[in-house]
Amino acid sequence: MIFNPRGLSLTDVVTLIEALATVAFALSGLFEAARKRLDAVGICVVAGLAAFGGGTLRDVLLDRRPFFWVEHAGWAWAILLLCVAAMFVMRARHFAPTERAMQWPDALGLGLFTAGGSQLALAYGMPGIVAVLMGMVSAVFGGVLRDVVCNEIPSAFRDHRPYALCSFIGGWVMVAADRLDWASLTAVLASAFVTTSLRGLALVLDLRLPEWSLDADDHRA
Amino acid sequence: MIFNPRGLSLTDVVTLIEALATVAFALSGLFEAARKRLDAVGICVVAGLAAFGGGTLRDVLLDRRPFFWVEHAGWAWAILLLCVAAMFVMRARHFAPTERAMQWPDALGLGLFTAGGSQLALAYGMPGIVAVLMGMVSAVFGGVLRDVVCNEIPSAFRDHRPYALCSFIGGWVMVAADRLDWASLTAVLASAFVTTSLRGLALVLDLRLPEWSLDADDHRA
Amino acid sequence: MIFNPRGLSLTDVVTLIEALATVAFALSGLFEAARKRLDAVGICVVAGLAAFGGGTLRDVLLDRRPFFWVEHAGWAWAILLLCVAAMFVMRARHFAPTERAMQWPDALGLGLFTAGGSQLALAYGMPGIVAVLMGMVSAVFGGVLRDVVCNEIPSAFRDHRPYALCSFIGGWVMVAADRLDWASLTAVLASAFVTTSLRGLALVLDLRLPEWSLDADDHRA
Repeated sequence: MIFNPRGLSLTDVVTLIEALATVAFALSGLFEAARKRLDAVGICVVAGLAAFGGGTLRDVLLDRRPFFWVEHAGWAWAILLLCVAAMFVMRARHFAPTERAMQWPDALGLGLFTAGGSQLALAYGMPGIVAVLMGMVSAVFGGVLRDVVCNEIPSAFRDHRPYALCSFIGGWVMVAADRLDWASLTAVLASAFVTTSLRGLALVLDLRLPEWSLDADDHRA
Repeated sequence: MIFNPRGLSLTDVVTLIEALATVAFALSGLFEAARKRLDAVGICVVAGLAAFGGGTLRDVLLDRRPFFWVEHAGWAWAILLLCVAAMFVMRARHFAPTERAMQWPDALGLGLFTAGGSQLALAYGMPGIVAVLMGMVSAVFGGVLRDVVCNEIPSAFRDHRPYALCSFIGGWVMVAADRLDWASLTAVLASAFVTTSLRGLALVLDLRLPEWSLDADDHRA
Repeated sequence: MIFNPRGLSLTDVVTLIEALATVAFALSGLFEAARKRLDAVGICVVAGLAAFGGGTLRDVLLDRRPFFWVEHAGWAWAILLLCVAAMFVMRARHFAPTERAMQWPDALGLGLFTAGGSQLALAYGMPGIVAVLMGMVSAVFGGVLRDVVCNEIPSAFRDHRPYALCSFIGGWVMVAADRLDWASLTAVLASAFVTTSLRGLALVLDLRLPEWSLDADDHRA
């Protein structure tokens, strides 16, 4: 077999992962911003935050430079052009993907960012729980920043559906693969596969997290 | 006397402080998230933000690594288990501490984080005003991040009660103690004591900050 | 001519720029916080965020230390005194500048921060698009943080008036000037002039960005 996954460096794998996941997340930002009736600048910024925010926050926490979008500045252009093109299409066709249709690329992005983020943290010598949290930050905090800027409680924290939880579990797959000395690409694929599958399962089965809310008014002194 | 405070290193003292304050702040996040009816994941994340957010932001600003919760990864586990346990207790007993009951551990956390944060900034060679601000960031910005994610104006900025102000004054106690070459532990205790006492006094006497709001509608052209 | 602009170092120029722009932005934070009826502490913090937030975020992203307000700690005092003085004046006179009156210093700050931020990023060896984004972060994200803390969707993203867009264009002027090897001060003045003029023109002509909102309810499946 000519294609040798083990020949791909960690950097190649992480770069490819981030690129794929970035587009899915940018679109989620673009549509939320459009729904909140932000202007053209706001749409581009929120799309950029959703796409690069999680990875950038992870890199700030890991003290890693240069950022993905600095090292590969073409990606900043790509997201910008994606937004401009999407705005023209939405305007001309009065069309936007449904939230439902967006769930699948988003689930893919969730898996890929989780795997990439936790692998990177392990490469930086982080303990297991921290690597898992870094995977979650990469995968979930782009969406958190998107929602905070759009003045919403982040949907990852309030919609009672497993989302960050899938990332949490998938992150542990990466930690386990790392402890077992799996090849880098195999580990990424396993972690991303588990995360995305769990999210997909949650969507298909319409799983809900249990309610933990306080019946505050009745029971507090 | 066998116990020799001067024998405790700066690192020991700061670590102990951060541990104690961390639990108080985690609980404040946990209860706010439960009141806002976030899901189980949101409760854990908001508790973690309230607990580690201020210290992490301070460390990012000081360019200090590793973070407290990276170096002592057990603490990330501790907060996670605390949240899970608290959720089960709240569910089983339909019980949550009143906001009133939380004010006292929170006042303790305010004092300890102020002292630890400003001392650390001084150890990094920061000027007095910057050290005081870093103490405030450590003590207050966990709560600010908690409130921002819960889509509230931070209570530290709008409830017209002295909170960040106590931290501001307590930070100057640390700066003064540093200029006077007090032992590290003495300085921390003095700064934390002043901060917590002022906050306690404000709570007991129900002190209010003066109103500065604009009577905007009447007086602007 | 005795005054020799080329004799000013890059550091001098950037420092001067940041100082001027800082006051304009601090006032914008001060008035928004007062309008939202924050307390005295909240007013100072929001003014500080508006003034230093954009530049600090840029410095965190560039991994640049010390921050402006750490290196020149007098500026933290200056903003604090400005806020206290402004609160007394507003209280005594029941007076606040109109939003309209604030637009012009704000436009000046927009230009100066854009020029300073993008120049700094170029000095750090960033690619053109990244330098332009760093100029925008410096100029716009102080206001974004101000609005997020005040629980508003950032006005820069929703008021359909060119603001960040002027910064975007002015940033490219800096990149072009850098490619053409213009003197540092000339480049800053050109970039700031273009940014501020475009913003001024947008205000005078009441220009609007086109609407891109989704007619979501009608067209989604």
